[in-house]
Amino acid sequence: MPELRKDPIISRWVIISTERGKRPHDFVVEPEVTKGGFCPFCPGNEHTTPPEIMAYREGGGPPNSAGWKLRVVSNKFPALVNEGELDRRGEGMFDLMNGIGAHEVIIEFPQHNQTLSTVSIVQFADVLYAYRDRIRDLSRDPKFRYILIFKNQGRAAGASLEHSHSQLIGLPIVPELVMEELSSSMAHYRLKERCVFCDMIRQEIQQGVRVVLENDLFVALCPFAPRSPFETWILPKQHHSSYVDLHDDSFPKLAEIFSETLKRLDAALSRPPYNFILHTAPVRETKLEYYHWHFEIMPKLTLMAGFEWGSGFFINPTPPEDAARYLREVQLEGTTAP
Amino acid sequence: MPELRKDPIISRWVIISTERGKRPHDFVVEPEVTKGGFCPFCPGNEHTTPPEIMAYREGGGPPNSAGWKLRVVSNKFPALVNEGELDRRGEGMFDLMNGIGAHEVIIEFPQHNQTLSTVSIVQFADVLYAYRDRIRDLSRDPKFRYILIFKNQGRAAGASLEHSHSQLIGLPIVPELVMEELSSSMAHYRLKERCVFCDMIRQEIQQGVRVVLENDLFVALCPFAPRSPFETWILPKQHHSSYVDLHDDSFPKLAEIFSETLKRLDAALSRPPYNFILHTAPVRETKLEYYHWHFEIMPKLTLMAGFEWGSGFFINPTPPEDAARYLREVQLEGTTAP
Repeated sequence: MPELRKDPIISRWVIISTERGKRPHDFVVEPEVTKGGFCPFCPGNEHTTPPEIMAYREGGGPPNSAGWKLRVVSNKFPALVNEGELDRRGEGMFDLMNGIGAHEVIIEFPQHNQTLSTVSIVQFADVLYAYRDRIRDLSRDPKFRYILIFKNQGRAAGASLEHSHSQLIGLPIVPELVMEELSSSMAHYRLKERCVFCDMIRQEIQQGVRVVLENDLFVALCPFAPRSPFETWILPKQHHSSYVDLHDDSFPKLAEIFSETLKRLDAALSRPPYNFILHTAPVRETKLEYYHWHFEIMPKLTLMAGFEWGSGFFINPTPPEDAARYLREVQLEGTTAP
Repeated sequence: MPELRKDPIISRWVIISTERGKRPHDFVVEPEVTKGGFCPFCPGNEHTTPPEIMAYREGGGPPNSAGWKLRVVSNKFPALVNEGELDRRGEGMFDLMNGIGAHEVIIEFPQHNQTLSTVSIVQFADVLYAYRDRIRDLSRDPKFRYILIFKNQGRAAGASLEHSHSQLIGLPIVPELVMEELSSSMAHYRLKERCVFCDMIRQEIQQGVRVVLENDLFVALCPFAPRSPFETWILPKQHHSSYVDLHDDSFPKLAEIFSETLKRLDAALSRPPYNFILHTAPVRETKLEYYHWHFEIMPKLTLMAGFEWGSGFFINPTPPEDAARYLREVQLEGTTAP
């Protein structure tokens, strides 16, 4: 019997096919074809990207030179531009403003042939620190109301360049889905005086069936009402609404669980394309009692029919309990089965 | 300068790249490869589908025989099942119910090698009547709260069978996006005592820049804040919240404008894959002053990065004013340029 399940945060229902649930090998993942050729993100080609906004360099060195561990540059083809006035205005009944904002690329590490699943925990942690540092820096600019951080891994997930990178879009508005998460979790808080995410984490850890991994600070789990097969969230166990409030010492722990989650997805699904998105509070809205930052990882396994994003209604052929079990049990290279 | 635009109905902002806007030939549409082979939807193969729920037959004839003009059957691999109890329940803090519902396939016409863009207006109108008849029939069953009608055209848009068909999903809940449309348009009504869709139609027809086509009863337009390039909506000029309230005589007029819209999309974009979705009021909620049924057509031209549906935030490289102009000006076969 299929099930209709409601996301505990927002009022999104999904159909979960519990009977003919798709297992990992039912999904055909096309292997990424390495195109080779010139890469603007590789060391030595720094002059071919827009100028550096920030970089991590061991022992320093001038901007836009080689020797970096991680580099942040403006997107060469930005969706939003940084210069000018917002000029919020109406056009009759319609509302618009100039597309002022930031669009940055985080070049995660110098190695062209590595992915976030294969680099060291130290390198992964640098990426996570960079997200924090860029959000902090942009939060000082009053025109930004939200900083959206996301990653497209693999061509089918929207990556147009092979070299591993994340993206940042700084917005003068709060995206719809974040608004919805905020208002729904606030409604829960008003009713219960508790954070709905904290409630969920507690129940998930107690039940165990949807937990993929955990350490003392974080938990990786397949959510109760996932939109897509093998959707996995990583959440801090301690309540924080904003990613920038994560303690310096906690980043390596986050890198550890994030890295192993991606490794397990890679092993179970033959290196699938995926997207992840950082869900965090709007800038300057710090210390919200009712919201809880987290990452949402969505492997791109099914051809999403347009009707799904056009209707806000999703059909997921893999129950999250099955997905979590596969991810827990899959054998990683260089390890033995549990 | 790119623009941030807000959908006039719900609070969805999109980025419109107004400067380096993509024109029709910038999109690479892969031609559909005809696979051939056995087709369960072709006349003569009626016994290979689940039994007929409804059919239009000129001059009658027994169910599940050939000689039909249009045929509705259950989906052979249904996402929801029709038998059993809903059994709404909680699992701790989570909400779920059995996946009870309807999942039907509307086989639009007998001809395997035609599409909705190539069949006659009479055949197109039959498809539109069938949507109405199925919604009416299912509305009698108290377990349904929403009937979702949609079409995936082309493999890239999610169609798994070539033979032209639409789908219907009868749901015991109202999908999230519909809920949002309802509550937002109700808010507008409370403020203005007018339907927000009626307001929009009036302004669009006055401005003209985003109108693709109109006749005395309907208008086809590219919405002010489209999620995807060449997104086109078809709306009745007269206020009706529910598709089932459309007058019998109006269907041919709807078929006319719908058909020409699809023909224009085909001509401008080399027969792109697309999805369309019927947005209509929930069943039994008839005669709503604040809601207005319509169709939303979304060609599948860009690789939608998961971040877009994961964030509810869209980047659209084609301004709707440009899209509408291309669609108005494109030359259809057998016609002369205006």
